[in-house]
Amino acid sequence: MTADCSFLTDLALADDQVSFADGRRESHATDWGTEHNDHESGVLPDAVVWPGSTDDVAAVLAAATDRAVPVTPYAAGTGLEGNAVPAHSGISLDLTRMDDVVDYRPDDFQIDVGPGIIGSDVDEYVAADGLCFPPLPSSGDISTIGGMIATDASGMQTVRYGEIADWVLGLEAVLADGTVIETGSRASKTSSGYNLTDLLVGSEGTLAVVTEATLELAGRPEQIRGGRAIFETLDDAAEAIFDAIRSEIGVARIELVDGLSARMANDYLDTGLPDAPMVFLEFHANHGIGEEIDLCRAIFEDHDVARFEISGDDAEMETLWQARREMAYAVANYDPDRDPLHPGDVTVPISSYPEIVRETKRLADEYELLAPCYGHAGDGNLHYTVLVDPDDTEQVERGEALYRAIVERAIALGGTATGEHGVGAGKQRYLEPEHGAGAVETMRTIKRALDPADTLNPGKIFPETADGGRIGNPKS
Amino acid sequence: MTADCSFLTDLALADDQVSFADGRRESHATDWGTEHNDHESGVLPDAVVWPGSTDDVAAVLAAATDRAVPVTPYAAGTGLEGNAVPAHSGISLDLTRMDDVVDYRPDDFQIDVGPGIIGSDVDEYVAADGLCFPPLPSSGDISTIGGMIATDASGMQTVRYGEIADWVLGLEAVLADGTVIETGSRASKTSSGYNLTDLLVGSEGTLAVVTEATLELAGRPEQIRGGRAIFETLDDAAEAIFDAIRSEIGVARIELVDGLSARMANDYLDTGLPDAPMVFLEFHANHGIGEEIDLCRAIFEDHDVARFEISGDDAEMETLWQARREMAYAVANYDPDRDPLHPGDVTVPISSYPEIVRETKRLADEYELLAPCYGHAGDGNLHYTVLVDPDDTEQVERGEALYRAIVERAIALGGTATGEHGVGAGKQRYLEPEHGAGAVETMRTIKRALDPADTLNPGKIFPETADGGRIGNPKS
Repeated sequence: MTADCSFLTDLALADDQVSFADGRRESHATDWGTEHNDHESGVLPDAVVWPGSTDDVAAVLAAATDRAVPVTPYAAGTGLEGNAVPAHSGISLDLTRMDDVVDYRPDDFQIDVGPGIIGSDVDEYVAADGLCFPPLPSSGDISTIGGMIATDASGMQTVRYGEIADWVLGLEAVLADGTVIETGSRASKTSSGYNLTDLLVGSEGTLAVVTEATLELAGRPEQIRGGRAIFETLDDAAEAIFDAIRSEIGVARIELVDGLSARMANDYLDTGLPDAPMVFLEFHANHGIGEEIDLCRAIFEDHDVARFEISGDDAEMETLWQARREMAYAVANYDPDRDPLHPGDVTVPISSYPEIVRETKRLADEYELLAPCYGHAGDGNLHYTVLVDPDDTEQVERGEALYRAIVERAIALGGTATGEHGVGAGKQRYLEPEHGAGAVETMRTIKRALDPADTLNPGKIFPETADGGRIGNPKS
Repeated sequence: MTADCSFLTDLALADDQVSFADGRRESHATDWGTEHNDHESGVLPDAVVWPGSTDDVAAVLAAATDRAVPVTPYAAGTGLEGNAVPAHSGISLDLTRMDDVVDYRPDDFQIDVGPGIIGSDVDEYVAADGLCFPPLPSSGDISTIGGMIATDASGMQTVRYGEIADWVLGLEAVLADGTVIETGSRASKTSSGYNLTDLLVGSEGTLAVVTEATLELAGRPEQIRGGRAIFETLDDAAEAIFDAIRSEIGVARIELVDGLSARMANDYLDTGLPDAPMVFLEFHANHGIGEEIDLCRAIFEDHDVARFEISGDDAEMETLWQARREMAYAVANYDPDRDPLHPGDVTVPISSYPEIVRETKRLADEYELLAPCYGHAGDGNLHYTVLVDPDDTEQVERGEALYRAIVERAIALGGTATGEHGVGAGKQRYLEPEHGAGAVETMRTIKRALDPADTLNPGKIFPETADGGRIGNPKS
């Protein structure tokens, strides 16, 4: 069922800000996750709108809410869980043109940006002042700040610097009825009123559309060294990581790649390295980085590390890290007959990290499927990929069952179904098992209160009702 | 007007869990803030209840909501803004008996505690494992974790370790209707669903009553040194702090005390020190603490520091810090005829710190009153105290005007009316000037949705309507 979006031509928008063309609608109905899973593609939006200002966003939302037309915010389309892919027809609100640096206050380590700015562009903008924006995800050079805020994204450096939420001081956002609000403070701390900023971060555009963000920045570390360790067994690697984190060594990145993933990377890149579990490391410090590296080496040696290579030279670090950097491509290209099913992540308490790694491999064996895994090990994060032949229905079903078993195991270990990619469409079934009925109903109560017409990204985060009705007022 | 609380005797509570005695009711109608301001004392609760379990809390809230009886959570009573002092009659819910360590997972740097546990007891509980709970406020040895969560408290070490919200991984809480919810995750990060944890932290018991908290812990630093610097002028001291923070020196505490406060401390303690602006410092590091101290000294010398004394010896550090530690007592005891008016804080972006310090002194001169100030300078925090003769009506009014002028100046500088003590009753008038009408109405919408009968701590955070009606359904 489509929604009548003809009212868009009556709003104060330029011709190039609205499109009803098939090509534009189709390009806004997929993300990285759905591209790997044709059967999961979203609903085609009826129109795509590119707002150029907060006023544009407010005008579109107010008019859409009046007419009960759904609005799904969109930007780079790099989500893995269908977060920005419409679940219902209506408007795809593409925020990529709102990509300005609005204000920059280097003395306060603060920058105000539009939601459409690319993450690494923020990092580059402030580099000349010795500053950086540290929580960027691995896709930081193509993903937008708005998308990162929507999913509370995080990445390799989260083990040291935290997640996106930790670096957002305040937001300007537009509610479903077109009201513009400002949240947070330019002060580094406040205990004034409810923390609307952290409520909006991670809400995937279901409560409001973020039109500007005040981000905190950090100084660049004076010392950086990086490299790679190779272990005999996956158990050794996972236990070594756990001990290193428990010892609070000053790592800024600590990434695990299992033996299967290593084999795929070695094949893809022709590295000549053993097909063995690897740990990729980066150390940041202002003083004493050598002591941190020595401590890490000693811990890794207790777990029979086979090779431990660290460098301070940029080109050498790049070479040592190559297998990790190319991992997603290596997995995707490993076997032309097998596709990765639902790329995504789970995250567990660090003490359970060795167990979730072991369990993932055990479950893959049990289901007789390949499930390479890697991830931001230092915060208990695991990216697992189930490879299946998309034309083999039985195998796809088996893959789905394996995928679910891994997520359920992570939740049973006190972890989360999604550490950094949001719930979107893909992780809805785990919302209640993870949070319990009371917390989910509390979330729904907030959604209904702030967006009673269910204009904003309907059909996301919360499972739709059995009869297909939507949250709030079912209408499509 | 009182509320009928006789239903409490019908609940499954022991005799010593409920009191209607005047003495108990009176002791639950004040906090540190109201004790200094008799004219601000709250309403006497009709009954005090000491729940011993989550079930007790759920039973009281469900019954109170059914009967439209207000419930004001209470604990140590160390708030400065009347946060836990009833604004309306009803029940004072005293959580101090729910003070257990429920679970402790040192391998995950996590501890689950009841809301009534004293902050420093958490710190001591985990010390044997080399762990600590770093964001404690200065009152951490008498304040409860529940109270800190209610106000999103912070303190001297926030400049390095963040505020309470940064150390709360998850909560168990009871909604107004008695529903028990769990928020957050034991994983160190999650992007699953709305961040209810950070919505409840700082909500001052107006949305739910916290019955258990999962806190993160940190390793104790290997190197600690502390001391004191004395400056010729307040400008020098404030500018030196700004430069030190901008240079990201590794301070864990950096506290400013103005010359007037120094005079009060010197008098009170008979220190023999000059009545000059002082900066109190503590450095934490695992390596290279000497380099950090040298960098700090160089920056302070650029601002003509007169004395710079740092020690690694515990007793010496204690002595150097004495004036700062006794500051509140020194101010309170300075003149028996003058009382501090509304102790509290404002917080501004760090680049505006020198200006708010200058402005506070300028305004005090303009209003011809003494306003000693000190605070957690590293995060732009200023505790200002206006001293007035409580029997001199004109002077009290002048003091109120000065107090308001300082807060308004902080907001104009992009800061917050309350960096660490919540809004409570005392800072309500600044809520809308700080956040704007749209954000405040969004907060109210959330309050109405989660607590439609306005059971929980009514009359706090949000200014009551002109006719004295309450948020939601006026009823007392």
